[in-house]
Amino acid sequence: MKKQSLALSKVYILLEPGPVVLLATAQGGKANVMTLSWHTMMEFEPPLIGCVVSGRDYSFDALVATRQCTVNIPTVDIASKVVGCGNCSGRSVDKFLAFGLTPVPAKLVQVPLIAECFANLECRVFDMRLVQRYNFFVLEVLKACVDPSCKDPRTLHHRGRGAFMVAGATIKLPSKMR
Amino acid sequence: MKKQSLALSKVYILLEPGPVVLLATAQGGKANVMTLSWHTMMEFEPPLIGCVVSGRDYSFDALVATRQCTVNIPTVDIASKVVGCGNCSGRSVDKFLAFGLTPVPAKLVQVPLIAECFANLECRVFDMRLVQRYNFFVLEVLKACVDPSCKDPRTLHHRGRGAFMVAGATIKLPSKMR
Repeated sequence: MKKQSLALSKVYILLEPGPVVLLATAQGGKANVMTLSWHTMMEFEPPLIGCVVSGRDYSFDALVATRQCTVNIPTVDIASKVVGCGNCSGRSVDKFLAFGLTPVPAKLVQVPLIAECFANLECRVFDMRLVQRYNFFVLEVLKACVDPSCKDPRTLHHRGRGAFMVAGATIKLPSKMR
Repeated sequence: MKKQSLALSKVYILLEPGPVVLLATAQGGKANVMTLSWHTMMEFEPPLIGCVVSGRDYSFDALVATRQCTVNIPTVDIASKVVGCGNCSGRSVDKFLAFGLTPVPAKLVQVPLIAECFANLECRVFDMRLVQRYNFFVLEVLKACVDPSCKDPRTLHHRGRGAFMVAGATIKLPSKMR
């Protein structure tokens, strides 16, 4: 694996643009993965991520029970896998197998990373205060790694009903006032 | 104004791809605007948005005091205005004036919409349970309008340190399993 460790203070760079992510969980020796777009950064360091995992999602129970997950960021190369994961349930499908995703052991959590994603975040559940009301979890990123060759990742951004915007060009804008 | 009303059930389509937004507030007859990337959808209908507005931001006090704001989504055409708004404080600058943003009266809140943005959401503060701990506000969208001519908005997506990804092409992927 050619991925390199990323400083936790830089994790926001990965998530702030709003990419579709693959959230993986594992329970009882069985790993699962779901597609997720409802997430936001909440703190730089330690990096906190807020995300909605519905009580209807199979991943919900594993997340509550184990308090661990990985957040993996795919690019358009594996778009069909990403959409496939979003259109079936781990109750009846082994998604790693069905969609040819390669599980890679994480360092700090008992949940696999997804090799085909250019960035992988190891997370623990940090705050469940808003879970009952909104299915909203606050996650802490414990470790992050990225593929250093992926400078301008062509991430997917869900626009609803099967439409995805693919990340376009990056522009630099002066960071100081005109 | 050529904008049309958008069904509240479709608001997620605007925010799920993770665009940079302009959050406007108003207090004591003075309107202000801030640039924001830390937001997520939390519910389809009524649409709920979670977002982080730091206690250091000038907008924080107005948001807490009035419990109202507008969320306005810009495109790359006004990128320099967006960055400008993010690099100064409403404490010392009238940003509408300084950056040539046109305030338009909203229907349901006492906060202006921003004419130059292709989509405008009128919001009220819905839940402040996580404000003290994370500066995290849950907003309810009361009314939404969009420019119907803007089919594939070239939204901005912050990548940190003055770099912005501009929305690229949209692809359609089958919504059912292969």
